[in-house]
Amino acid sequence: MVNGKKLNQIIIKILKKNGLNTNHAKICSKALINAELVGAHSHGLSRLKMYCDRIQKKVINPKPKIKIKKISQSISQIDANNSIGFVAADIGIKQAIKNAKKTGIGLVGVKNSGHYGLSGYYAEQAVKKNLIVFCFTNAPPAIAPHGARKSLFGTNPICFGTPTSTKVPFILDTSVSVINRGKIRVAARNGKKIPKGVALDKFGKPTTDAKKALAGVQLPIAGFRGSGLAWMVDILSGVFTGGNHGGKVKDPFDDFSGPQNIGHLFFVMKPNLFVGNYSERIKENIKRIKRLPKIKGVKEILYPGQSKRKRYKKNINKKINIIRNIAEDLKKLNA
Amino acid sequence: MVNGKKLNQIIIKILKKNGLNTNHAKICSKALINAELVGAHSHGLSRLKMYCDRIQKKVINPKPKIKIKKISQSISQIDANNSIGFVAADIGIKQAIKNAKKTGIGLVGVKNSGHYGLSGYYAEQAVKKNLIVFCFTNAPPAIAPHGARKSLFGTNPICFGTPTSTKVPFILDTSVSVINRGKIRVAARNGKKIPKGVALDKFGKPTTDAKKALAGVQLPIAGFRGSGLAWMVDILSGVFTGGNHGGKVKDPFDDFSGPQNIGHLFFVMKPNLFVGNYSERIKENIKRIKRLPKIKGVKEILYPGQSKRKRYKKNINKKINIIRNIAEDLKKLNA
Repeated sequence: MVNGKKLNQIIIKILKKNGLNTNHAKICSKALINAELVGAHSHGLSRLKMYCDRIQKKVINPKPKIKIKKISQSISQIDANNSIGFVAADIGIKQAIKNAKKTGIGLVGVKNSGHYGLSGYYAEQAVKKNLIVFCFTNAPPAIAPHGARKSLFGTNPICFGTPTSTKVPFILDTSVSVINRGKIRVAARNGKKIPKGVALDKFGKPTTDAKKALAGVQLPIAGFRGSGLAWMVDILSGVFTGGNHGGKVKDPFDDFSGPQNIGHLFFVMKPNLFVGNYSERIKENIKRIKRLPKIKGVKEILYPGQSKRKRYKKNINKKINIIRNIAEDLKKLNA
Repeated sequence: MVNGKKLNQIIIKILKKNGLNTNHAKICSKALINAELVGAHSHGLSRLKMYCDRIQKKVINPKPKIKIKKISQSISQIDANNSIGFVAADIGIKQAIKNAKKTGIGLVGVKNSGHYGLSGYYAEQAVKKNLIVFCFTNAPPAIAPHGARKSLFGTNPICFGTPTSTKVPFILDTSVSVINRGKIRVAARNGKKIPKGVALDKFGKPTTDAKKALAGVQLPIAGFRGSGLAWMVDILSGVFTGGNHGGKVKDPFDDFSGPQNIGHLFFVMKPNLFVGNYSERIKENIKRIKRLPKIKGVKEILYPGQSKRKRYKKNINKKINIIRNIAEDLKKLNA
């Protein structure tokens, strides 16, 4: 257990020791701690050692020369020079916000980046500035395209955010895999079965055996539909931006043969482009949906982002629990 | 059975008799026949009588004064004045294409429109001009939000298209319901069961009884995820554009108490904004995915839009089959 302020200092110190400047280290630390606070531990401290390893093996550049190229008043391209993903994405979303504030819409493509953590974290930055936002990023192979028995698409999240006229933003941040790999790992460890329709074994046959699933592939949500959505995200964030695509993004934990060259795409819009009263309209929209009759056992119809915010609020004033092996990593990195 | 040319003449004649000008009648006829050719009969001739009924009941305006408002070089708003949806959408996508050709991106919001048929049909127009495209539209209640036992979201398609450097465009046009209502209707008629996880009965309990499902609600793909995607589409096409939203879009077949005021959102981008060789990159992307090892029984990994295009090519030189009750409708409308 450690308090957030202390943890922040430790992470910043570790990243600076690895060659990041103070500003970049702060950006990373904030994103990592946010992941812990919203309960996305797989995107938090558990990755810090990996980032440091990649810096040591020279596949993340701790002192990147990040270039921002203006394509138009609305459109910018960022070459992140293999920076740590958090820094590239932070610059990317801020540029998209700037462009949108100026012209109504901002489109930013980022290439030569790395894993940037949670999409929703960047979406939230735009929503806090009263903007509507899409964030797309690709990722290492995790999901088989429909019909294939080999993974190629990443979990390729679709992330959309909008102001709600309340303090809790609407942030949809959904991967296109049926369940996440972490859950399959836990099931395998505990000898539990996984649900039907979630994964194939290495021969391409449906399986409920978690171990066989780990050796095989995960399936996209809704078959051909989810596969198409994952493909769309790969095109937008990889093919379109200049990033790697089509299964070429390297696994950050296992593959140190070169930088990831992940691509991100940020698209941001002013909510009042077409209507003068967006904030009232979105409030009314949410109200109508929340007052629908509920199925048995459901207390409240939640919009995307509400649960995450609840977890954040619950955790923000508490000490952060760090599991033993990660605490040990931190200790070594901080030595 | 009737050939396409003849059918086109009949539809144009019927729509002109209902007050549309020749140009608008041609736009509608082309969209309706396209739906038949790609095998989307639920979006084709089966709707013609409904459109005429709505014109007769003055809830579709056959002589709309459609206003195009320039927000910026990239952004336009269209007030369709309760036109038939095809006409509003045709003007909308053409304006988005024009803006994108000029500035790299085009964003067009349409309000006071109606059901516009297949999203993919408009996406294809942009892709034919070598552009990347998103089309969003909302629709009358068909799907229950996650946790609710009453429908509110439409089937709210997510539609994305990109050039592929071949003649067959990549067009993902996927509704967010698990299966479409037509399939449940057919199952109910034939006394067949529907799959698990597709629908709830009117008490909010999961059912495989097609009749109970029709009296109940359809479910979104992937639970909370699909529900979030449907909500996103309602916000983009309704709340954002000035169209109806939050369950207020009227059913075009059943509710003649007023216009639908459906909203559409078109977003179009030049593919070479960030890279000079998009066409090679997308070709390589598709190639890599197609050569993955396949699961047993799968001959080819298809990208979204390929099946539809195959049906289109198969049907384009054949006569169009019209089922009896629709042929009778046509006869009456044409009398």
